Amino acid sequence: MSPTLLVRGLAKPATRLSSIRSIHSSMTPRGPALNLKTINPSILDVHYAVRGELAIKADKYSQQLASPGPSSGSNTTNVETLDHDLPFKHVVTANIGNPQQKGLNQKPLTYWRQIISLLEYPDLFEKHQELAEKIYPKDVIARAKSLYKEIGSVGAYTHSKGVLAIRKRVAKFIEERDGYPADPESIFLTAGASAGVSSILSIALRQGDGCMIPIPQYPLYTATLAYLNAEPLPYYLSEERDWSMDHDTLLKAVSEAKAKGTPVKALVIINPGNPTGACLSKEAMEAVVHLCYEEGIVLLADEVYQLNIYDPSHRPFISFKKILKSMPEHIANSVELISFHSISKGVSGECGRRGGYFECVNIDEKVMEQVYKMASVTLCPPVSGQIGVDLMVSPPPADSESYPLWKEETSLIHNNLKERSYLMAEHFNKLPGMSCNDAEGAMYLFPKIEMPQKAIEEAKKRGKEADVMYALDLLDATGICAVAGSGFGQEPGTYHIRVTALCPETKEFVGRFEKFHKEFMDKYK
Amino acid sequence: MSPTLLVRGLAKPATRLSSIRSIHSSMTPRGPALNLKTINPSILDVHYAVRGELAIKADKYSQQLASPGPSSGSNTTNVETLDHDLPFKHVVTANIGNPQQKGLNQKPLTYWRQIISLLEYPDLFEKHQELAEKIYPKDVIARAKSLYKEIGSVGAYTHSKGVLAIRKRVAKFIEERDGYPADPESIFLTAGASAGVSSILSIALRQGDGCMIPIPQYPLYTATLAYLNAEPLPYYLSEERDWSMDHDTLLKAVSEAKAKGTPVKALVIINPGNPTGACLSKEAMEAVVHLCYEEGIVLLADEVYQLNIYDPSHRPFISFKKILKSMPEHIANSVELISFHSISKGVSGECGRRGGYFECVNIDEKVMEQVYKMASVTLCPPVSGQIGVDLMVSPPPADSESYPLWKEETSLIHNNLKERSYLMAEHFNKLPGMSCNDAEGAMYLFPKIEMPQKAIEEAKKRGKEADVMYALDLLDATGICAVAGSGFGQEPGTYHIRVTALCPETKEFVGRFEKFHKEFMDKYK
Repeated sequence: MSPTLLVRGLAKPATRLSSIRSIHSSMTPRGPALNLKTINPSILDVHYAVRGELAIKADKYSQQLASPGPSSGSNTTNVETLDHDLPFKHVVTANIGNPQQKGLNQKPLTYWRQIISLLEYPDLFEKHQELAEKIYPKDVIARAKSLYKEIGSVGAYTHSKGVLAIRKRVAKFIEERDGYPADPESIFLTAGASAGVSSILSIALRQGDGCMIPIPQYPLYTATLAYLNAEPLPYYLSEERDWSMDHDTLLKAVSEAKAKGTPVKALVIINPGNPTGACLSKEAMEAVVHLCYEEGIVLLADEVYQLNIYDPSHRPFISFKKILKSMPEHIANSVELISFHSISKGVSGECGRRGGYFECVNIDEKVMEQVYKMASVTLCPPVSGQIGVDLMVSPPPADSESYPLWKEETSLIHNNLKERSYLMAEHFNKLPGMSCNDAEGAMYLFPKIEMPQKAIEEAKKRGKEADVMYALDLLDATGICAVAGSGFGQEPGTYHIRVTALCPETKEFVGRFEKFHKEFMDKYK
Repeated sequence: MSPTLLVRGLAKPATRLSSIRSIHSSMTPRGPALNLKTINPSILDVHYAVRGELAIKADKYSQQLASPGPSSGSNTTNVETLDHDLPFKHVVTANIGNPQQKGLNQKPLTYWRQIISLLEYPDLFEKHQELAEKIYPKDVIARAKSLYKEIGSVGAYTHSKGVLAIRKRVAKFIEERDGYPADPESIFLTAGASAGVSSILSIALRQGDGCMIPIPQYPLYTATLAYLNAEPLPYYLSEERDWSMDHDTLLKAVSEAKAKGTPVKALVIINPGNPTGACLSKEAMEAVVHLCYEEGIVLLADEVYQLNIYDPSHRPFISFKKILKSMPEHIANSVELISFHSISKGVSGECGRRGGYFECVNIDEKVMEQVYKMASVTLCPPVSGQIGVDLMVSPPPADSESYPLWKEETSLIHNNLKERSYLMAEHFNKLPGMSCNDAEGAMYLFPKIEMPQKAIEEAKKRGKEADVMYALDLLDATGICAVAGSGFGQEPGTYHIRVTALCPETKEFVGRFEKFHKEFMDKYK
């Protein structure tokens, strides 16, 4: 190949020269500029178990079951050849809180989808009004029209904090929930709670700053902290006491961090709990706020499961905002709180829409400006998710045409979650070597496995944690996909598994689970 | 206030003690934990002019014009009291590429909205088929059904890379565009191009790594680099030569960075250009690829305006993938390229939906795994945006029922952009002290202002760049909102302004602009 060929299109002598250098380079090829040694090293520290090896394996099984012939095509080139005679007919995805996914098929709320479909295609109520009225209830059309007037096209960027009219209704929802005022300017709509959490952590934390996280926790937190080079400061939730925390445990974690010279900047609480499914008492929450006050720590309250409470008379959901604001004034007006909410959970389960919000309480105004600036770099949250937030905080009024169906659908979803959780917890508690706290909320159970010593040794041989081996073996044997406790963190020497309460065939599910579990315990006893 | 009051709900002596400490703290109040001195310092370095002071002022004027009475209510507490006698009747938002916003009202593509509304509310084709057929063309219903089969509920999380079936159609689109194969596994759907860019930069760059960026540039790049503590390495686009770059200029920037010890990791190119509106020649693109090859630099090609080309016979869009793959094998198979695309621009202008994709070419497989892992932490891109990508890469076939209307709508949008750009450029070139390159594509013009010395001095007095003063004065006088060139970067001593070609009343727009400009030049001559 001649140099002339290479300089095609390059007019200047200098480039000709460098093209000659490039031939030289081609003879001594260097590796790629981007490789594991040259990329941002904090990326390598990020772990995210919920969609890790297990999920990839489950995907493969699903693809395999969907296409009984031998795999082919460019998209399956990375799929290992697998035996098609699987001992199950479908994969039960009990690993992620994704209510509307295929196989689970939680029905979307009709009210939501009707309104959003109208907003997506306003011709429906503008040009085809007569036909639309045969399909849609009148209150749905009216609300869509009113939202259309506020938002305009769902294809336009909105204010970077989200549509003001929606933020005002979020503020009203918070006020009615808590009995304390909320300011729409302190509310940011987001692309789901995850986007809000990672934005806030990235603003709040300097490298080396400490952030207290519960163990077990949702791995978004450890993943984000690893990326930010911030220090996760674990505090253990007490399985014996409903997965709660107390002031002493928290204080111990703070003191240990301080002794190491780590500034304790923030404290994350997930309530109701993921993966624990537990709901905090008022007393535990007050202890947390006290600690944040005493130590000058920012409280980050992940409250995305606030609608998923099974028995509010026993253990109601109370927001940290309400707890904080009910405390003495010097605490109420000083402890910095950011609370996250989402449309992905609750009874809507609209994960794919990516919608949520966070509210900032007692946050310095100059810092709020920075939060706004960073929101503006990402332009705006998905409008469809913003509309979801509006529908979540402002459901159809009780006297509206749409209310009965909405009530029926939301009650069904709520009761399903509750009954499945109760049934599963009851069942887990009957299994040998397994115990499970009462299900209180969220959409998960986190039963403990008394792992046999032989299983621990076998796992070590396989280079895995024992609960990871358990989860992988469970998937291989039953098609049930559940995440090992080590993906969330757990007290050393304990083993857990997280399952969602979303699977419709709960009895079949527990039957398959029981069979596997007993065989597993027998095998390693 | 007694200690007893404070320890409400706290059972343990230890907490009682610390509550006493908290009283002490309340007497010597400390500042907030989060303040400008304690947050992540790189946040403070982030600047984002497109939605800065000018946009905030324009927002205020809009609100003011919308509500003629004196401002009131909690949401306007931060709004300065403004005189209501503004010298204009509406704000012309020529500052952001947001085609469907109120006031601009670019009509969404009917085909898109019809399909998405059906997917949002599948009952339309499942329960109300007869009525639906009176509203929707048959091919629209068929495509919605087919997408529904592939995706399932739009409320479910998808694969973190995006729906495989959609990624396959993106690959097909790229193959047909370029004539070279594309792998669906190397394609990631994203929440708009911005999300893709910031994800890739955050993975690729270590602190201190250099990233070459064009000047002028879209401020997402400098904002993201500031956040990442990476080093922006500016290279100037030559206004005299159609805002193009050449090998020597690039090489100079590389050499300077190397001399300072900054590793040159990546090179960003925006083509067609934002804010320049220029489209690169094949020769310029080849020079860029050569440089990346010689220096081992990753090429990041921001190609979100690829559909916005006004005269393809003069200056067609060519993708960097095509240029790269048409080069000698040792270059074609080694230069690392990531190309970004979006549904926010083009003829769809669906910004609020947040959809886009990037394709990785020649990227190390281990690095690809990291990209996938980081995508999985954010769960999945908005499904509605994913559907938008599908509709962008796979428009209605020419023989379909929906094609004529789609063609009519897209042609109108395309021609509007083109005619407005031509008209504006022609007009700008007639104004005293203003010159503008020919409009070639994207949706912007970036005219140069020969800033009078007196204006520069006046701006200095006001503590502003002269072009920022120009933009603010323009807004005050005319309601036209345009971004100063300094927000994008420009050669020192030059002054520009970026205007979008999205405003429907172009003639009125240029009239108002002309009046202001002449008065400005007169005032400071």
